[in-house]
Amino acid sequence: MHPLDEAIDLQAAAPNEFKGATHPAYANMVGPFGGTTSAQLLQSVMLHPDRLGEPVALTVNFAAPVADGAIRFVARAARTNRSTQHWIIEAQQSDGVVATATAVFAVRRETWSDVEAVMPANVPVPDAVPRMPVKGMPAWPQRYDMRFVEGAFPAAFDEQEQAHSRSTLWVRDEPERALDFASLVAISDSFFPRIYIRRRRRALIGTVSLTTYFHADSALLAQVGTRHVLGVAKALNYRHGYFDQTGELWSPEGQLLASTHQLVYFKD
Amino acid sequence: MHPLDEAIDLQAAAPNEFKGATHPAYANMVGPFGGTTSAQLLQSVMLHPDRLGEPVALTVNFAAPVADGAIRFVARAARTNRSTQHWIIEAQQSDGVVATATAVFAVRRETWSDVEAVMPANVPVPDAVPRMPVKGMPAWPQRYDMRFVEGAFPAAFDEQEQAHSRSTLWVRDEPERALDFASLVAISDSFFPRIYIRRRRRALIGTVSLTTYFHADSALLAQVGTRHVLGVAKALNYRHGYFDQTGELWSPEGQLLASTHQLVYFKD
Repeated sequence: MHPLDEAIDLQAAAPNEFKGATHPAYANMVGPFGGTTSAQLLQSVMLHPDRLGEPVALTVNFAAPVADGAIRFVARAARTNRSTQHWIIEAQQSDGVVATATAVFAVRRETWSDVEAVMPANVPVPDAVPRMPVKGMPAWPQRYDMRFVEGAFPAAFDEQEQAHSRSTLWVRDEPERALDFASLVAISDSFFPRIYIRRRRRALIGTVSLTTYFHADSALLAQVGTRHVLGVAKALNYRHGYFDQTGELWSPEGQLLASTHQLVYFKD
Repeated sequence: MHPLDEAIDLQAAAPNEFKGATHPAYANMVGPFGGTTSAQLLQSVMLHPDRLGEPVALTVNFAAPVADGAIRFVARAARTNRSTQHWIIEAQQSDGVVATATAVFAVRRETWSDVEAVMPANVPVPDAVPRMPVKGMPAWPQRYDMRFVEGAFPAAFDEQEQAHSRSTLWVRDEPERALDFASLVAISDSFFPRIYIRRRRRALIGTVSLTTYFHADSALLAQVGTRHVLGVAKALNYRHGYFDQTGELWSPEGQLLASTHQLVYFKD
């Protein structure tokens, strides 16, 4: 079983309640990788007997540090319409709520479609880009095969401030795993905090809110399979302890699979 | 009293509960302007006796059409930390939940700050740009003074598809009102649906989720006062009934006040 599937293997415990736990394969320096927590929050809806359709939007708020160990997920459909459904989800540990989330699920129809965002051009194929070394890193980056074309995680925190924080990289689960909503959500939180790329300086950081819009449905995700997706991320603004960053995840064929935005706390 | 202040004039009804109503000055074609509903959701936290600090992130999910009339707001602090606080808010009408929201509030500290997004250059001052005519429009656009530099609302739905949906405009409340979090949230939802700019074709649309990150604190908003702010908006992707758009709101001095993202349902 893939470690991500182990991590999102929640057990129904009561109506609207699921039990799960942090997974050592996705450990961060302290507590778990937020992407895995996000995937678990989404999974509590995916597994819910009342679920309608597929996710189109997910917002996760990281309310407190998640401790290694058990997590209780409470997922409630606040509103169900004919083709859309709105969820409120809470992750709880012994000391209270550690994350909240809202999710919008929908049954999609075929319509006029078009990509207006621009996929980076002239990007070398994944095989032509070396994988980021993960030795000495926490467990979670070791669960990804990241190949940076631009804006790599700094090899040294030399405090040489960069002109911008933009990154372009190929990324997939490691070991390989066919892309689905759970892995797409986790990958949406796999962009390193932009302040590290920008300032090459240590800082205490923590994502406080993460929003992902799913442009792909499960059929499109299945077309991607186990291949890399192209990730692009950049910061918009840093001010008084918070910055935001925005990202895109593209299929190799140039379909925008997801756009993702987050607000990050930092202390310098 | 300014109509926006009337619209967000909620009455405490019980612990965690406030009563409000839609306001005819912000009516849309059917029901109210979503920006006003968002401002009301935020206001239920602003008025809450347990509130800590100022908003840094707000996500509003529009769960069902809001009917003209009374709305009940239930705001609950899911988690309070030393300098951050996480809220879950629901807007209810007689037929159930019509909107859900999560908000992150925080006490900010001074840190290294920088804008990485790029404000449009060579934009003429507001006085040099004509105001968008609002005759024949619903009430809510009449509550804004919008001056389009680029990407105006189409004068006619001539079905001439455009290359992109980008808009740049000066915008302020009409009548004038000093900028605060309530008006900033409402303005974040005032960008017209990008599909109208892009396709110049009628479509049934509805925002399903709106996320705003506040880079400004109340001191910075006070500096803007009643002047226009510069709005920039563009779409990223349209696919199978949903598209997303992203926007920025800039102070005249080039401070990024807020970044805002939304997912919109459409039917063509």
